[in-house]
Amino acid sequence: MTKDVIISKVQNFGKQTASVNDVLAVEEPLEISVSANGETTQLSVTMRTPGNDGELATGFLFTEGIILSANDLNNPPHQSMGENQITVRLKPGASHDLQKVKRNFYTTSSCGVCGKESIEAIMQVCRITDRRKDAKVNMQHIFTLPDKLRAAQETFNSTGGIHASALFDFQGELISLREDVGRHNALDKLIGAELLKSEGETFFLQDRILLLSGRASFELIQKAAMAGIPVVCAIGAPSSLAVETAEKFGITLIGFLKNGNANIYSGADRVKF
Amino acid sequence: MTKDVIISKVQNFGKQTASVNDVLAVEEPLEISVSANGETTQLSVTMRTPGNDGELATGFLFTEGIILSANDLNNPPHQSMGENQITVRLKPGASHDLQKVKRNFYTTSSCGVCGKESIEAIMQVCRITDRRKDAKVNMQHIFTLPDKLRAAQETFNSTGGIHASALFDFQGELISLREDVGRHNALDKLIGAELLKSEGETFFLQDRILLLSGRASFELIQKAAMAGIPVVCAIGAPSSLAVETAEKFGITLIGFLKNGNANIYSGADRVKF
Repeated sequence: MTKDVIISKVQNFGKQTASVNDVLAVEEPLEISVSANGETTQLSVTMRTPGNDGELATGFLFTEGIILSANDLNNPPHQSMGENQITVRLKPGASHDLQKVKRNFYTTSSCGVCGKESIEAIMQVCRITDRRKDAKVNMQHIFTLPDKLRAAQETFNSTGGIHASALFDFQGELISLREDVGRHNALDKLIGAELLKSEGETFFLQDRILLLSGRASFELIQKAAMAGIPVVCAIGAPSSLAVETAEKFGITLIGFLKNGNANIYSGADRVKF
Repeated sequence: MTKDVIISKVQNFGKQTASVNDVLAVEEPLEISVSANGETTQLSVTMRTPGNDGELATGFLFTEGIILSANDLNNPPHQSMGENQITVRLKPGASHDLQKVKRNFYTTSSCGVCGKESIEAIMQVCRITDRRKDAKVNMQHIFTLPDKLRAAQETFNSTGGIHASALFDFQGELISLREDVGRHNALDKLIGAELLKSEGETFFLQDRILLLSGRASFELIQKAAMAGIPVVCAIGAPSSLAVETAEKFGITLIGFLKNGNANIYSGADRVKF
């Protein structure tokens, strides 16, 4: 979603200036609530690019550990109260623990606040243990991903100001792409979209490569871990805690992926040359 | 703060691979609490790069509207319980409203959730009305800022993976720089550092230009508005709500500032050529 504006464009150190039309990525708040057993609870307000809000809310509930699969949903998420408010309705008796959101993955009560605790908090709620240790990914396929992402990034191409997350299969074919002003929202939309299409009592993305348009933070690797994604690539740099989390979950983490170069930070044994 | 790791470096489409030393930007959680009238309340857990945590906590309390100046602080912020937990102690009777953090700037109770409401929520708590409408800034000085930022960005230069916020005076001289894996943390550290150095019952940065190393989101313009900063420049793109917020507060917002080019999104009358 974009917005047209008129700006002053200054070029060549001020030698040329002109009033021109420009396009901005839209940023608006979204309030995410969950409704279960007749009670509605507000969980979060996030600044996001409008569009695919049902996917965003569903993905957020899944990556926070509140729902396990599409089986937990009563019906598709409902934007009843206004375009910036969405409620996800859970089936009666669906397993959920709203306190998880308040605890969140950054802090646990046992020993205070530290990165190690943040990782252990994910391990407590993440049900995915088999992360395809045997599956190999070809580095030549990995090198093709950034060009495919950029070619498919509609909103980035018009605004230059939006993050993307994309899923590829192990042969390097683009499966799905989502864009958002918030990188965590782009990933929640991507995961939520796959979850809404899925069937069964569990949900995972074990045959997929995730490509992030920017840097890889803890929060993004946490979401990939929850979704069972075995390979995460980023155009930018990872943080220390992102690498530690990837190691702990057996995720192959590749950073600075561009122009035929890459750094492999963890899980290099999954990559073949 | 950085961490040394060993990675697999792949170059030239896999023709060269080597195991090399690399440097990561550290990411760890920080729990921010406030202590007032004998009561301590946990406000927020943020993923940040350790270092300058007192500035971060102070800047966060200021940009959320909880404190107005260094006069509200009992003593410098205290990291007593562990290195990832910090408590800011307020003077008895200091004006503060902890409910503000729970309400936050994304949502108000009056008409639901929308961008317009988000802007109005800032206007209700922001005390700075005179944003130097008369002050002019020279575009030639603006063009010099990105090179000065990059030259001073120590952690970025070693890791390639960290955001920066910097303050310059109207002549384009670098005053202060902070880096963090979270762009909102870099800005809170920058503002908090200036606040801790300041005296008096109010605090503002009306003679400063803010430069952001990445994109300009609503959250960053909100913090600049709270600090009274009249000119904000970003290397990347602004969002729609960032531009609307800048317009409402009379902030000059310049984006895509690089290589002698720039887009002026609001407050162009403050820029002279």
